Amino acid sequence: MRISFIGAGRVAHHLAKALQARHQIVQIYSRTYEHADVLAQAAGAEAAYSFSALKSEIDLLIIAVSDSAIADVIQAVHPYLPNTLIVHTSGSTGISKLTQAHARAGVLYPLQTFSLEREIDWTQTPLFIEAAEPQDLMMLSTLASELSQRVYPYSSAQRLSLHLAAVYACNFANYCYDMAKQIVDEQQVDFSLLYPLMLETAQKAAAADPKTMQTGPAMRGDQNIIAMHTLMLEQANRPDLKQVYALLSEQILQRHQPEQI
Amino acid sequence: MRISFIGAGRVAHHLAKALQARHQIVQIYSRTYEHADVLAQAAGAEAAYSFSALKSEIDLLIIAVSDSAIADVIQAVHPYLPNTLIVHTSGSTGISKLTQAHARAGVLYPLQTFSLEREIDWTQTPLFIEAAEPQDLMMLSTLASELSQRVYPYSSAQRLSLHLAAVYACNFANYCYDMAKQIVDEQQVDFSLLYPLMLETAQKAAAADPKTMQTGPAMRGDQNIIAMHTLMLEQANRPDLKQVYALLSEQILQRHQPEQI
Repeated sequence: MRISFIGAGRVAHHLAKALQARHQIVQIYSRTYEHADVLAQAAGAEAAYSFSALKSEIDLLIIAVSDSAIADVIQAVHPYLPNTLIVHTSGSTGISKLTQAHARAGVLYPLQTFSLEREIDWTQTPLFIEAAEPQDLMMLSTLASELSQRVYPYSSAQRLSLHLAAVYACNFANYCYDMAKQIVDEQQVDFSLLYPLMLETAQKAAAADPKTMQTGPAMRGDQNIIAMHTLMLEQANRPDLKQVYALLSEQILQRHQPEQI
Repeated sequence: MRISFIGAGRVAHHLAKALQARHQIVQIYSRTYEHADVLAQAAGAEAAYSFSALKSEIDLLIIAVSDSAIADVIQAVHPYLPNTLIVHTSGSTGISKLTQAHARAGVLYPLQTFSLEREIDWTQTPLFIEAAEPQDLMMLSTLASELSQRVYPYSSAQRLSLHLAAVYACNFANYCYDMAKQIVDEQQVDFSLLYPLMLETAQKAAAADPKTMQTGPAMRGDQNIIAMHTLMLEQANRPDLKQVYALLSEQILQRHQPEQI
């Protein structure tokens, strides 16, 4: 297949590198030409200066831009590629954002967190696909199955629920690590001491129901420790951390020891 | 060394099993005799019916009970073992809780989350030791170094900061997984789809500063997605999840895009 990209961010970067093994990456367009050029060189493609420079002899255009830009991009691109399958990669944007401007629309959503520095194990990354037309769904299914063992045709509504859950399991969990680092940094204690705990916590939750794996003072209803931690956060003058501590402890307590409230 | 335990919970279980390879586990005492008996059989020890039944010909007594019970236990045990090194395993209890009743006191705190179903990699688990007397610190250092490559003499104040950070990095991160599971359960979507994301998030944070690894709508300042997620949580009638979403998103936004507030 001949594939072009709109967007040269983290998702485009990882997808282009992974698809390159079996397919030809033709062009990369980005609002910032330099970004398109960097990715184009890495993926054996060429950078496009404008939407009008996009070649129409391709099988698939992948829009990997921020959610808020998708509607504008499809409006601008459609006139140049009216008959090409065009997909976006977003968990939280419905396929309708594309179909309102373009008939051959689809979605290829990888449920993973991407950073430029780290390789992704694509074979284990769940890929959720959707398409307006059945033959395009078949084509996306074939393409996705080359990358991953876990390909699922999901509706926009199901993807939305997964993406919301991912905000908790990924973005909020990472912010918990960030808060933990701020606490140990304050005492010149090395954050790396917490790595085994962080990894074991994630592995435990992935091996069983995280509700049954909950530990800590709030789960035990240990009000003495909770009061001491609260005092420590007050003395450190960290109302932000204290607010998170109070809310999450209250909810954990409620979930595990409702009779004590 | 000859070692006995007070407590037969998760920490006692994992420690006794690990120490058993090189040392003799003599007795286990628990408020619930059956629990002591189960661990005693697993560790080649005998269960003690009462504090007065504890044999005094031991080198070390490990108190692995809940924080709130430590003060009572040391008071009750001291008369029977007045000259024995007695340690607790708590991150958030100072050594002074022991020294006020017993001179040869110490701490052996493993920074890890324990569950009965899962094996721990002791060699990578950080162990924090403290003792009232220098020769006891030497003895604990030798013992701890047999278990782990990461042994640190830490004061009670340093341990306290680590333990508070661990509440965020472990207990609160796990509650984020728990909330994510509740969201996908509601849509009959399989929670296991989120495993690669959870594990990659933890591995990323452990490979670099979690602040720089932050992703998601709040980090990007994407108010459209935030408003849509908030609406979804309202429609699902989950004020608890909505409250967490609002607080953490606001703090992530503030930390990453302060100029937009």
